[in-house]
Amino acid sequence: MNKHADFIQIPYREMYDTFLNILLAHNFTRERAEQCASIFAINSAEGIYTHGVNRFPRFISYIRSGYIKVDQTPSRVGGFGAIEQWNGNLGPGPLNAIHASDQAMGLASQHGIGCIALANTNHWMRGGYYGWHTARKGFVFIGWTNTLANMPAWGAVDSKLGNNPLVIAIPYKDEAIVLDTAMSQYSYGALDQYHSKNQQLPVPGGYDEQGNITQDAGKILVSRRVLPIGYWKGAGLSLLLDILATILSGGLSTHEISKKEAEHALSQVYIAIDIKKLSHFPAITTSLEHIIHDYHTSQPEKGKDIRYPGEHIREIKEKNIASGIPVSEKVWDEIVALAEGH
Amino acid sequence: MNKHADFIQIPYREMYDTFLNILLAHNFTRERAEQCASIFAINSAEGIYTHGVNRFPRFISYIRSGYIKVDQTPSRVGGFGAIEQWNGNLGPGPLNAIHASDQAMGLASQHGIGCIALANTNHWMRGGYYGWHTARKGFVFIGWTNTLANMPAWGAVDSKLGNNPLVIAIPYKDEAIVLDTAMSQYSYGALDQYHSKNQQLPVPGGYDEQGNITQDAGKILVSRRVLPIGYWKGAGLSLLLDILATILSGGLSTHEISKKEAEHALSQVYIAIDIKKLSHFPAITTSLEHIIHDYHTSQPEKGKDIRYPGEHIREIKEKNIASGIPVSEKVWDEIVALAEGH
Repeated sequence: MNKHADFIQIPYREMYDTFLNILLAHNFTRERAEQCASIFAINSAEGIYTHGVNRFPRFISYIRSGYIKVDQTPSRVGGFGAIEQWNGNLGPGPLNAIHASDQAMGLASQHGIGCIALANTNHWMRGGYYGWHTARKGFVFIGWTNTLANMPAWGAVDSKLGNNPLVIAIPYKDEAIVLDTAMSQYSYGALDQYHSKNQQLPVPGGYDEQGNITQDAGKILVSRRVLPIGYWKGAGLSLLLDILATILSGGLSTHEISKKEAEHALSQVYIAIDIKKLSHFPAITTSLEHIIHDYHTSQPEKGKDIRYPGEHIREIKEKNIASGIPVSEKVWDEIVALAEGH
Repeated sequence: MNKHADFIQIPYREMYDTFLNILLAHNFTRERAEQCASIFAINSAEGIYTHGVNRFPRFISYIRSGYIKVDQTPSRVGGFGAIEQWNGNLGPGPLNAIHASDQAMGLASQHGIGCIALANTNHWMRGGYYGWHTARKGFVFIGWTNTLANMPAWGAVDSKLGNNPLVIAIPYKDEAIVLDTAMSQYSYGALDQYHSKNQQLPVPGGYDEQGNITQDAGKILVSRRVLPIGYWKGAGLSLLLDILATILSGGLSTHEISKKEAEHALSQVYIAIDIKKLSHFPAITTSLEHIIHDYHTSQPEKGKDIRYPGEHIREIKEKNIASGIPVSEKVWDEIVALAEGH
């Protein structure tokens, strides 16, 4: 365990084992505990700390409060051909999400394209995980979740929209191109980080209390008016993603979730496409390589790297596996306390 | 015909008849000429002038140059279950798009969800038209097109990405909620308009030649560096939409289209979902009404209206039908000259 400033570096295996033991102590079966620990540890190793190690204590607290039902698994409630509705039964979000992704791939294998709409599930942590999971098996993935209200409609001052992350993943050379993007320009977690480091946001992220667009994270944390990506465009996209998740699954919408005492019982959509079934499948690899090659020949701004979404993940992971996953001491202490049964 | 400044107002019927006669003179069959004239006239009546009347002269010039083949219709080249590949055979983009939307609905009726990937087609003008078309028949629509390169990758100065408009439409009360959004914050057409009126853009739209983000449309027209929606987020989304359109259809990607002498032979995706087939279908209407009601109770910024995507369309259309569709005299003169056989 290396230490610099108030960050420590936890070896991947130690982090995984710690998660595993805590989950086992919270009545997960071994298989489900392993899968869940692995998702949290990989999200952390791949640099998505906000939806890995940093979020683990809240995951456990939601289990203790009964929002997340450890032993529940999704059940099929309806369907027609290539689209099915499932009830997540408030099971752990990451396990439900893997289940839904696998079911979507099953439908896609049968019908070319498949869609699972999942109601009554829990926070999936990092949506990109299911994009990688699905794309590595050779399927295109398009999926999204709704959230509680945390972003105003365009022209409004109060939050009625979720930031509703959208994930698109495409198989590429035994790996994947994976976009995982919330509809807000910055998450509240990111705003907190910039604010605590006293850094200006790289691009405008919301409004101050006077209604001016600002790059000052602290002012946005006060006004609670974050900016959607593309202003009116991302606000519209967020609304439609919520509507689709709600009506396709028959589950709760952002405004209904927001009435609850904590963010749970979400609605999600998982679409998979089995590109191996396309008659021109062999040509896809070459076509994709040409697109990425052309993209990489972009003329960069001074000092900039031109990367496709997900391209940097492997590098981050290798670094974190080699030298440990950076975690704030405070967060790790909290997790160790959970492991000790507190 | 009323006149104010250099804009005139053309009655809907006069505009439709003018388009119709020009299309008939360019060897469209009567049925196809009527459908195509209607799409251009409705796009104009609904306020999307850039992809209606203002674009009509270029549509005719592409026919004359042979990029658009008037008599060609799409042909099915492959498929598996609920996903099919079609070749647009360079037929007129709007007619190919209606055909693909109808085929997607056909697949959705059979399989719940259906996907048509269309290669080798032409500019569909206003993507939202096919969203309305599909949603009014009771289907969810998710569709997008690629374009030639007109936007830089994030961190780059030269354009390698298209602005690849994405359309999502949802049936609502015999009407629809329709989002139609390009991946750039502003189109070049919009930048031209702000520049010609000497108006500042409402939000940043691109870079000046020195690499600073600016709201000055004129400077962006010089640098050719438009901003993606949400900065790195919209750039990523644009790349993935191009890849999906290309690999699912087996057609050309943005970088291949950009090598051609004019923007044609595009790739598009049309996904339809038959929500009437869902077992909880009757509950969808109520659920949707609750979401929209909650959305409309947003607390507006002073002077702002809170509208969902597409909500303003009916009003614009009623106004334009009542008092004529505003067109610049220059554009209308050009169209009248085409009608006179020039």
